Amino acid sequence: MPDPMIASKIAQAVGILDELDIDCWMILARESGTVHDPSIDLVVGANVTWISTFLITRSGERIAILGSLDKAAHEALGHYTEIVPYVKGITESLLGVLRRLDPGRIAINFSVGDELADGLPHGLYLKLLELLEGTPYGSRLVSSEGIVARLRARKQPPELERITRACTETVDLFLQMHTRIRTGMTEKQIAAIMVEIMEGKGLTRAWDADHCPAVFTGPESAGAHAGPTDRVMEPGHLMNVDFGMRFEGYCSDLQRTWYCLRPGETAPPPAVMAGFEAVRVAIRKAAAFIRPGVMGHEVDAVARGHITAAGFPEYPHALGHQIGRLAHDGAGLLCPIWERYGDRPFARVEEGQCYTIEPRAPVEGHGVATMEEIVVITADGCRWLSDPQDEIWLIPPP
Amino acid sequence: MPDPMIASKIAQAVGILDELDIDCWMILARESGTVHDPSIDLVVGANVTWISTFLITRSGERIAILGSLDKAAHEALGHYTEIVPYVKGITESLLGVLRRLDPGRIAINFSVGDELADGLPHGLYLKLLELLEGTPYGSRLVSSEGIVARLRARKQPPELERITRACTETVDLFLQMHTRIRTGMTEKQIAAIMVEIMEGKGLTRAWDADHCPAVFTGPESAGAHAGPTDRVMEPGHLMNVDFGMRFEGYCSDLQRTWYCLRPGETAPPPAVMAGFEAVRVAIRKAAAFIRPGVMGHEVDAVARGHITAAGFPEYPHALGHQIGRLAHDGAGLLCPIWERYGDRPFARVEEGQCYTIEPRAPVEGHGVATMEEIVVITADGCRWLSDPQDEIWLIPPP
Repeated sequence: MPDPMIASKIAQAVGILDELDIDCWMILARESGTVHDPSIDLVVGANVTWISTFLITRSGERIAILGSLDKAAHEALGHYTEIVPYVKGITESLLGVLRRLDPGRIAINFSVGDELADGLPHGLYLKLLELLEGTPYGSRLVSSEGIVARLRARKQPPELERITRACTETVDLFLQMHTRIRTGMTEKQIAAIMVEIMEGKGLTRAWDADHCPAVFTGPESAGAHAGPTDRVMEPGHLMNVDFGMRFEGYCSDLQRTWYCLRPGETAPPPAVMAGFEAVRVAIRKAAAFIRPGVMGHEVDAVARGHITAAGFPEYPHALGHQIGRLAHDGAGLLCPIWERYGDRPFARVEEGQCYTIEPRAPVEGHGVATMEEIVVITADGCRWLSDPQDEIWLIPPP
Repeated sequence: MPDPMIASKIAQAVGILDELDIDCWMILARESGTVHDPSIDLVVGANVTWISTFLITRSGERIAILGSLDKAAHEALGHYTEIVPYVKGITESLLGVLRRLDPGRIAINFSVGDELADGLPHGLYLKLLELLEGTPYGSRLVSSEGIVARLRARKQPPELERITRACTETVDLFLQMHTRIRTGMTEKQIAAIMVEIMEGKGLTRAWDADHCPAVFTGPESAGAHAGPTDRVMEPGHLMNVDFGMRFEGYCSDLQRTWYCLRPGETAPPPAVMAGFEAVRVAIRKAAAFIRPGVMGHEVDAVARGHITAAGFPEYPHALGHQIGRLAHDGAGLLCPIWERYGDRPFARVEEGQCYTIEPRAPVEGHGVATMEEIVVITADGCRWLSDPQDEIWLIPPP
């Protein structure tokens, strides 16, 4: 079933090509069901087996050159108006199309700094250079990272609706699970409850099953990006979940924090509340600051500064990432100026982008306070796509 | 849950490094849940978020350098004995490890000719060159394609058992569906029956849901690599399915042919039988010929020659591909000497490899006869992993 979002993203790409003064975007792929460029989900819609290329031009042409046995599937989707199938080899068809179009600047699907714009395998890149030998086209190749970044970042209204719905369903799942969890359960048992609620909604996970959901309880927990373990949730623990679901191809990615009351306690101890409040306020300060034109590292600094001023260590990661078709949707990042982030701290925030905001604060002897919310950037600020956590959620004593 | 096959494939890789005179295999990845190198499933077992590298040395060392938040997941798997987490950037840790190992030849994960050994994105390759600038290591990089090809091709007994089981379950599914299909059903309805049987077995698809199963009926059908349509199976049609399932991470990929009897017919017309027999005999001739040491194009030629001698056109694809963790398992291919196959027709068949054999013959006015079987290469020939189709399966007249 063709996704109508693809036609609409292709049309958006044509405008971006013009804006970037690029004549042709050429996505090159092979056996893409296995070594997969995520741009295929954005503007192609089905995989290919043999070396194939999808060309979108500044004047709106859409040409696919692919192995003959892949033709029917792409014809059925209908996103590419010209489909050139080959049997023995791609060279002639590709050179024929390039000679006809004679594009001045050809953007291909690699990027040093943005992993989601970096779907062209290195060997296939070398193969392309081989195919283009003796033609003028090899020297006209540039990175398509600018196209991919803009195309992923600039959400169209139906995309925003799907992300919003994914967030609403996830917040609802948190509320439902809250009524079902209690001390004595393991991280794995809590995760199983979440998966059961997700399946009841007919939705799927936003990332790898092995740590979606992530559930971590208490001071010795593994932290983000690790799967739930047999560790038991005990009184005195901070317990956190990090979870995202996919609604019609678009993701949520949210975190929530619980505290397990000890016998006799009616509220968390002051240290726990200080951690929770540091995170809660850091999120709100970042959201109050973010707006079109500011750089990612400036937004990160607002939250990071609040966390350290409150006496907690710096979080060992970025404040937030973009979200969309993927939970980590590439390009612009709310991150500090660290080597691993390359040029990305300096990318400017734009209207229509969706960011997570997710600082954390460890609380000695209890665990970690973390919340993660999602905002969409508006003309002069931002608006929540998730109903943010305002109070720490309490689990009664056993 | 760590897959015991991974430890065993890592041990096998160490032996292959020695055989190829390579000191260190370095798999480089980032955001690998999205832009995924299939070697990660073979010798790593979990994804990474930030730039990471997994090093396996000729002397058996296994070192992972990765972002600190990915540490716990890889520690839990236990496949890498040394895990070096970083917070701000990978450079220092990576250079430290390389200085200590001082490998003479470093194989990295790209390949011009073998798409399954080509999991390193081009931008990340450029980033690696940047990181290694000013060191001697950049000039020591070679392709790891020889390692990956051997590691995927040389099946260990537990791998063979899983593939065999995937085949047995698929043949059983064909027998079950045979009792449930009848003329008047659409390709989509037939596919739905197959999926229902698969789900009943608790198994999953071997490739993309959009054309797994592929079902094509009659003379106007779309052919392989296309999804089932609303086309109705009618008397006089050849109907084919192409389907694979995954059992404990290993795949089958088989095809079967049916003929729909017309009112009054008790057997298919001679033209249909000629097509079926051409394919049946071509498969058996190829299986009788294949053995260690022959080249892929020689095996293809045996089947291709039989098909054309029987008066049918050449099939527009290779005779067969390897199968294993993936339905298209890379490297050695039973293919003609065509541009699109590069050097692969000249790869020699080795003991322990598993190949599909899948010629086809179109029959004017009826559709296509295709069967696909799987063999494992033995010391002096091959052995079927799938119970091959001996007779055309008949669907009674309406």
